[in-house]
Amino acid sequence: MIRLEHIGIAVKDIASGNALFAKLLGEEHYKMEEVASEGVNTSFFRIGESKVELLEATNPDSPIAKFIEKRGEGIHHIAFEVADIYAEMARLQAEGFTLLNAEPKRGADNKLVCFLHPKSANGVLVELCQSIIEDSSI
Amino acid sequence: MIRLEHIGIAVKDIASGNALFAKLLGEEHYKMEEVASEGVNTSFFRIGESKVELLEATNPDSPIAKFIEKRGEGIHHIAFEVADIYAEMARLQAEGFTLLNAEPKRGADNKLVCFLHPKSANGVLVELCQSIIEDSSI
Repeated sequence: MIRLEHIGIAVKDIASGNALFAKLLGEEHYKMEEVASEGVNTSFFRIGESKVELLEATNPDSPIAKFIEKRGEGIHHIAFEVADIYAEMARLQAEGFTLLNAEPKRGADNKLVCFLHPKSANGVLVELCQSIIEDSSI
Repeated sequence: MIRLEHIGIAVKDIASGNALFAKLLGEEHYKMEEVASEGVNTSFFRIGESKVELLEATNPDSPIAKFIEKRGEGIHHIAFEVADIYAEMARLQAEGFTLLNAEPKRGADNKLVCFLHPKSANGVLVELCQSIIEDSSI
């Protein structure tokens, strides 16, 4: 694990979330991105070498809509950057963690991502992520 | 806000938590510390410029015991390092955030800390922290 890449925070409304977190962090978000496959709109704020990612559901079946229905707005997941997502997935599975996807999938912010089941990680939804090199064959 | 200083994670048992997070992060915790005033045992893991802090209740009235009773184990708070905690507290209060303590208090890891009420911060318990300089007059 290289660093804490970001903290994902579930919000009901991303425009209100952007305004609130700009006040909190003293800086505006620097980009927004829709991840249609996950049913989310995202926005990103920089903080040191990490980011805050806001997540808004784009449909009622989105994992973010379900999360907010069950637990309210708040911290949804934490993401660690890894050097080799395939190697880390294999290592963590061997250590007893449950992977939510057997193969890395494409997430926001030009990343390959894999989630660990919170039940295997002390109630924490953990994301592993690795930046996609633009001209690679991945 | 300078950086994401740490993520605080509530655990029922800190020994089990230490073992689990050592597997997850690929590295052992580097210190443990009791904060008697908060009713918690803490342990710390390094990850890049940030830390993971595990929190175990030392009595049934501890905020961590109440958190786990209500929500289960999981992410409890996020902490941002600030350069001047008094200035940030004043700024954030003026921006409409609710401070949980009117004066900074002494937290784990040799820090002055102040928490923001989650209701004013999108359901997120936010900690501001500033390292205490050993020979200062603070």
